[in-house]
Amino acid sequence: MSGRPARPSPQVMESLARELRATLGEEAVRGDAATLDAYGRDESDAGVFPPHLVVFPGSTSDVSAIFRLCQAHGVPFTPCGARSGKSGGSLPVLGGVAVSLERMNRLLSISTEDLVAVAQPGLVTGELMKAVESRGLFYPPDPASLDMCTLGGNVAENAGGPRALKYGVTRDYVLGLEWVLPSGEVLRVGRRTIKGVAGYDLVGLFVGSEGTLGVATEITLQLLPLPRVVRTALLSFPSVLHAARAVSAVLAAGILPRTLELLDDVAIRAVDGRSFHFPPGAGACVIAEVDGNVEEGVTAELTSLGEVCLHEGALEVLVAQSETQREGLWAARRGVSPGLRALKRHKVSDDIVVPRSRMAEVIGRLKAIGTELGLTVATYGHAGDGNLHANVLYDSPDDWPRVEEALSRMLRLTVEVGGTITGEHGVGLSKKRFLPLEQPAPLLSLQRQLKALFDPSGLLNPAKIFDDAGC
Amino acid sequence: MSGRPARPSPQVMESLARELRATLGEEAVRGDAATLDAYGRDESDAGVFPPHLVVFPGSTSDVSAIFRLCQAHGVPFTPCGARSGKSGGSLPVLGGVAVSLERMNRLLSISTEDLVAVAQPGLVTGELMKAVESRGLFYPPDPASLDMCTLGGNVAENAGGPRALKYGVTRDYVLGLEWVLPSGEVLRVGRRTIKGVAGYDLVGLFVGSEGTLGVATEITLQLLPLPRVVRTALLSFPSVLHAARAVSAVLAAGILPRTLELLDDVAIRAVDGRSFHFPPGAGACVIAEVDGNVEEGVTAELTSLGEVCLHEGALEVLVAQSETQREGLWAARRGVSPGLRALKRHKVSDDIVVPRSRMAEVIGRLKAIGTELGLTVATYGHAGDGNLHANVLYDSPDDWPRVEEALSRMLRLTVEVGGTITGEHGVGLSKKRFLPLEQPAPLLSLQRQLKALFDPSGLLNPAKIFDDAGC
Repeated sequence: MSGRPARPSPQVMESLARELRATLGEEAVRGDAATLDAYGRDESDAGVFPPHLVVFPGSTSDVSAIFRLCQAHGVPFTPCGARSGKSGGSLPVLGGVAVSLERMNRLLSISTEDLVAVAQPGLVTGELMKAVESRGLFYPPDPASLDMCTLGGNVAENAGGPRALKYGVTRDYVLGLEWVLPSGEVLRVGRRTIKGVAGYDLVGLFVGSEGTLGVATEITLQLLPLPRVVRTALLSFPSVLHAARAVSAVLAAGILPRTLELLDDVAIRAVDGRSFHFPPGAGACVIAEVDGNVEEGVTAELTSLGEVCLHEGALEVLVAQSETQREGLWAARRGVSPGLRALKRHKVSDDIVVPRSRMAEVIGRLKAIGTELGLTVATYGHAGDGNLHANVLYDSPDDWPRVEEALSRMLRLTVEVGGTITGEHGVGLSKKRFLPLEQPAPLLSLQRQLKALFDPSGLLNPAKIFDDAGC
Repeated sequence: MSGRPARPSPQVMESLARELRATLGEEAVRGDAATLDAYGRDESDAGVFPPHLVVFPGSTSDVSAIFRLCQAHGVPFTPCGARSGKSGGSLPVLGGVAVSLERMNRLLSISTEDLVAVAQPGLVTGELMKAVESRGLFYPPDPASLDMCTLGGNVAENAGGPRALKYGVTRDYVLGLEWVLPSGEVLRVGRRTIKGVAGYDLVGLFVGSEGTLGVATEITLQLLPLPRVVRTALLSFPSVLHAARAVSAVLAAGILPRTLELLDDVAIRAVDGRSFHFPPGAGACVIAEVDGNVEEGVTAELTSLGEVCLHEGALEVLVAQSETQREGLWAARRGVSPGLRALKRHKVSDDIVVPRSRMAEVIGRLKAIGTELGLTVATYGHAGDGNLHANVLYDSPDDWPRVEEALSRMLRLTVEVGGTITGEHGVGLSKKRFLPLEQPAPLLSLQRQLKALFDPSGLLNPAKIFDDAGC
């Protein structure tokens, strides 16, 4: 241990920059103001933390060399991808070096026979999806940011998305990783086969480690056969409570759609009338999508789902009649987060998961917290999983004390009902002060020991996940 | 670190036994010869290693107290369940205390609304299955030993089974664990919700850690809705190579059955004519099972599968016409391992996984290794996953040098084609000498450091996974 990492001095940075340029070449090391500002931001509301330098490795050995040089100079270094993260996980909070994996963006191979794809971490998730789908294969994890986010970021955060309901999250598809440890040492963990239990499951430990235990430089992913038939329906309800109860009823009826996405009244207002028109009078909507290989089976499943929802008070069941209609519906869903940002000047986005049986109750109590504190609370997201993106909207930074109070109450409620404070966005910077609500001191201490085993200097992505106050 | 663990002296054991009896009560601590012999064996061929004592904790605090007492006396302790393991993972190789979780066998709760079950580790897997199925729910992992193996053992080994092809393995269903660390400290890791990414994925690290990082005392499992329709077919082929190519062709055709189980000629011979008659002239068979909620969809899928197999040279496609026929088929499949044991006096069972595109080639080469060395090699198992149970049968212990040579060649071949030496049985004692074939020294060293972080004294389940020679 060389003590707690700190902001590097200009002298140290100058000397490190020289060595980085000598190793990587001039154009792979940038320190201009616009670049530093851009790499100090992400899609969270955690603030702006410009690094001293941004480096763009082109290979695994570049990444290894960068890590070794940063360690040698005692300079903090923080990997980043598309900077689409929602918890500040790739923000270089102590400055130092931002290590962007975006140039390592090649799709290395797709095997239709093995149902396996191998990619570099900078590959945009949506591009992988398109490439495998053109060969009749399927990569299910579908974060809303799929047109910009990268696989490396998905691995770091264990990204989910609507289809997680039926198909699981990123970790369910990562078979193997080439991994650069904080020391710069390069390992291959996991495998290329569908199953395997040789040794400890380091893939399991690394996926979702939020860039604090090392970085993936090559990712081996399991694929599935692409389902031949997909049917999508929009179900409207008088209120969000009706919708939440219908989601539970669908699952309890033994139906497992691939998505059950919820939009409450505020979320509908955020996107209605732009590219898509929701049914008039809808107090909430659910987007349900069912898939399979046989038309009759898929249609029958969607019909049963519609019947359950009508029984639970659905106003209308509209089935998308074309791929264009279906795409319009999903574009509206993906527009909720940016749309909410446009409704009020500021928003903070939460990402709680609650036991599915408690969802309707929790939504009611989240809304009540907003009412009590005079704040607008939007709830939407992956209701089938119990994963709610609860957003607090506000007009002015002066409202922050009330917003912080709302967040704190919402997360306490979540833990109280047996839920978790983050379903897919990660703890990062935004939620580290709340992690002790969910995890007691001995568990946090064990995780700090793991971090110290992998990163004794603490220079890799410092000040994340665990609150410094608890050090 | 208190040095390398060693066999305890009689004096130390006597003093520990007194304290264990005082803590747990007389009947929870046994040292009679029959019990010690029984707890020195499992379903592997790794040998007999009787412990000095067997203890039967009734609660988490009992487990914690046992671990603390063993640590205080410097006595090795090894957890065990049903002792149905195939890699010797629960054998107390240095003697000491065998900690049997079998009395902690309660099913604590099933929530149909949350799709979650909570159980103690000693619960038999098949009993959990029956209990959840009676409520319309589904726990997919189905190791062949499901009538005797326990959930705690399934967690320790990350058990699979035929249905892993469509539904994944144990780790895909473990949401949360109550976990006793080697020190005796009790933690809760993971969650009760379907998703969650708060902190490092310790559940991922602990599942499959083969009883070397601690023991589960409570297991929270995700369930699925029970598929309403299941159809099963037996497909016979002229040879195992035809069958292997058909398995690949089914998957390449975009069909994802829930099982694609392979039996070669030797495996068929081991069970034919007992409870089940295979089609005459079959050189290999595949048991394919398809499930879903809608009759038409499932039937159509099975029909497509049959057509693909006929195109690949299948002799016959027989669809089970009743639940009795279906059960008979699966009973035959589960009878392969004991049946092979009856064919010759000895067998060693391998558990390799190879990329699916290489399966037919690998089976041919495994058979050739047997022919060259004058040994019978049976190949069967979860062919859809590329997971083959390759068994070497032999008559006399004098054959061991040739058997060892065959095993070594088979595992080298596996690694050479990009496979793994164990798909679901674990490394344990049986395969630790082969692990360096697959994993290089730096990766093994990192895993040893993890083990040392959790278990500095090394007293928990010593001499497993990592070969002592490499210490």
